Amino acid sequence: MGLALRRAGAEVHGYDFDAERAERARAVGAVDLLASGVHEVGSRVDLVVVAVPVAAVAQVVVDALDAGAPLVTDVGSVKAPVVAAVEAARPDAARRFVGGHPMAGSEQEGLDGARDDLFAGATWVLTPTASTDSAAFAAVRAVVGELGADTIALAPDVHDALVAVVSHVPQLAASTLMNVADRGSDRHAVMLRLAAGGFRDMTRIASGNPGIWPDICVANRDAILTALDEYLTALMQVRAHVAVGDRDAIRAVLEDGQRARRNLPTGLPSDAVLVELRIRLPDEPGQLAEVTTVAGRLGVNIVDLEIAHSLEGPGGVLVCVVPEPGADRLEAALVERGYPVGRAVVE
Amino acid sequence: MGLALRRAGAEVHGYDFDAERAERARAVGAVDLLASGVHEVGSRVDLVVVAVPVAAVAQVVVDALDAGAPLVTDVGSVKAPVVAAVEAARPDAARRFVGGHPMAGSEQEGLDGARDDLFAGATWVLTPTASTDSAAFAAVRAVVGELGADTIALAPDVHDALVAVVSHVPQLAASTLMNVADRGSDRHAVMLRLAAGGFRDMTRIASGNPGIWPDICVANRDAILTALDEYLTALMQVRAHVAVGDRDAIRAVLEDGQRARRNLPTGLPSDAVLVELRIRLPDEPGQLAEVTTVAGRLGVNIVDLEIAHSLEGPGGVLVCVVPEPGADRLEAALVERGYPVGRAVVE
Repeated sequence: MGLALRRAGAEVHGYDFDAERAERARAVGAVDLLASGVHEVGSRVDLVVVAVPVAAVAQVVVDALDAGAPLVTDVGSVKAPVVAAVEAARPDAARRFVGGHPMAGSEQEGLDGARDDLFAGATWVLTPTASTDSAAFAAVRAVVGELGADTIALAPDVHDALVAVVSHVPQLAASTLMNVADRGSDRHAVMLRLAAGGFRDMTRIASGNPGIWPDICVANRDAILTALDEYLTALMQVRAHVAVGDRDAIRAVLEDGQRARRNLPTGLPSDAVLVELRIRLPDEPGQLAEVTTVAGRLGVNIVDLEIAHSLEGPGGVLVCVVPEPGADRLEAALVERGYPVGRAVVE
Repeated sequence: MGLALRRAGAEVHGYDFDAERAERARAVGAVDLLASGVHEVGSRVDLVVVAVPVAAVAQVVVDALDAGAPLVTDVGSVKAPVVAAVEAARPDAARRFVGGHPMAGSEQEGLDGARDDLFAGATWVLTPTASTDSAAFAAVRAVVGELGADTIALAPDVHDALVAVVSHVPQLAASTLMNVADRGSDRHAVMLRLAAGGFRDMTRIASGNPGIWPDICVANRDAILTALDEYLTALMQVRAHVAVGDRDAIRAVLEDGQRARRNLPTGLPSDAVLVELRIRLPDEPGQLAEVTTVAGRLGVNIVDLEIAHSLEGPGGVLVCVVPEPGADRLEAALVERGYPVGRAVVE
């Protein structure tokens, strides 16, 4: 993220618990200046990005808020317990914190996987809540946009349930599959020689950093168990089809998987028509979170966002630029919730 | 395979049940001449390659043998039932059949995934048995070598058990994971937007051709159930670790997976030292299969192979060229089984 921020023109002040790693980050150009701690840097930057193990995120966010940071976000893989801990510890200052989770990266660890274009085209989840300041959300979203990523806003617990399915359980499944294949001393050498592209693809994430997973599994325990149980149940169903040789059922599993995989979105089409939705927000807390998380649930990508304060009364106007395929759905959902919405096609 | 064979200088006569597809194969350059059936082509080629769905392989192999084909191999994903069916149907002619399975390909189907270098560096399993003619095995192995692949010889049932783990169960696991993520109408759109590289890698094979899997699951049922049960048991163990928040156990699963994945072989190192093992074979059937499958079980790649008939008595000398890392293991295993083995480093 340091590389990407600097590429976008920001000056990056960095701090790491491990001085050697901090120096290396500076050496590879991810950081302009090294700071001596969160307390030192908090008040003199525009945005603090907390990128530490999940179990440590809330405390570092609180430290940054206490140091006077005007805006704080993080990049942790689990959001609900972190956001709740920050809001419980600093009910007021928490409005300057916006939880985040960029859905990008590789099996490489830390600086080894660093690229200044890592986030181009990626989806970046932000998890505003009723306490989140609208301007803070808009500011973090703008930074995310600068890095080339698409923002999707989700409630923290919705985020956690979803990443359990698309990230945490797949990681556990990949590592476990790798372990099963590796087992047995006399056969495993040849087994691994037989491993062709499909197996290599499936187990690639197993080569990632093991150190982050105990934290994630503890922090997101319930959602992971729910998703793992869904997966186990579905696998046992497949086992039953194989056991009785039910060709039609086996084929249906494969066909459903093929259809779903081929529908996996690959990023915003470059020729998408963009629509500007202008949504009047009453002057109440939590409105921004509601609108953006409605968009998130519908899978609608917020390409651009601006808070315009209206001259005609309290509240303001939220200007959301979204691509055509989802604009209708979002507009309908917001109108249903009582928001006045205007729209225009962006040229 | 047609593309690769033609690139290696062979003239390819092709036949397909579907005339349109046959014509397309000719148009893309995978076939020189189209034949009207296996019966027509069998006697006028040096080698028949059977590439049909698993359930149809044995019958087409028998047709080719009946047509007088001097040598027949196949590329099916399951071997034991096919080899057994051919040997039961044509106990004598079966010596001219060598079961095969190239561990290469992609999620693309048929001609869409065709590349003339698809097999370069790939592992190609051959499954000779006690009935297989030594010269037939050597000839098929030579063709595999011409295509740039490394031969590994395995007993048919060993092959089937191994591919259940590295290919069949991973395919079922990927399709099932994709289906779990795709489920649920309100959340699936956003879930799929969160799917980053790891999930995409893990589910890539789910986009492959569903049509081949009912056959494979029926033909390799027992091995798949065994491997699937190992995987389910291991996953339930992981579930238990997550449920109680056992950080050490979770970390161990991830660390084991990382170590195993990083040890996944990536092909023969180009600077490998090659050793020539000269193995005297008694004049008894099944010796070649035993030697080559011993190499296979040890994960030793047979880079080159020649049958030299000795002047000093019955039997012959099998000349195997294998890379240094495994040559010692193979030599020791063969000596233990009573084979006289000589060795020399290949310059």
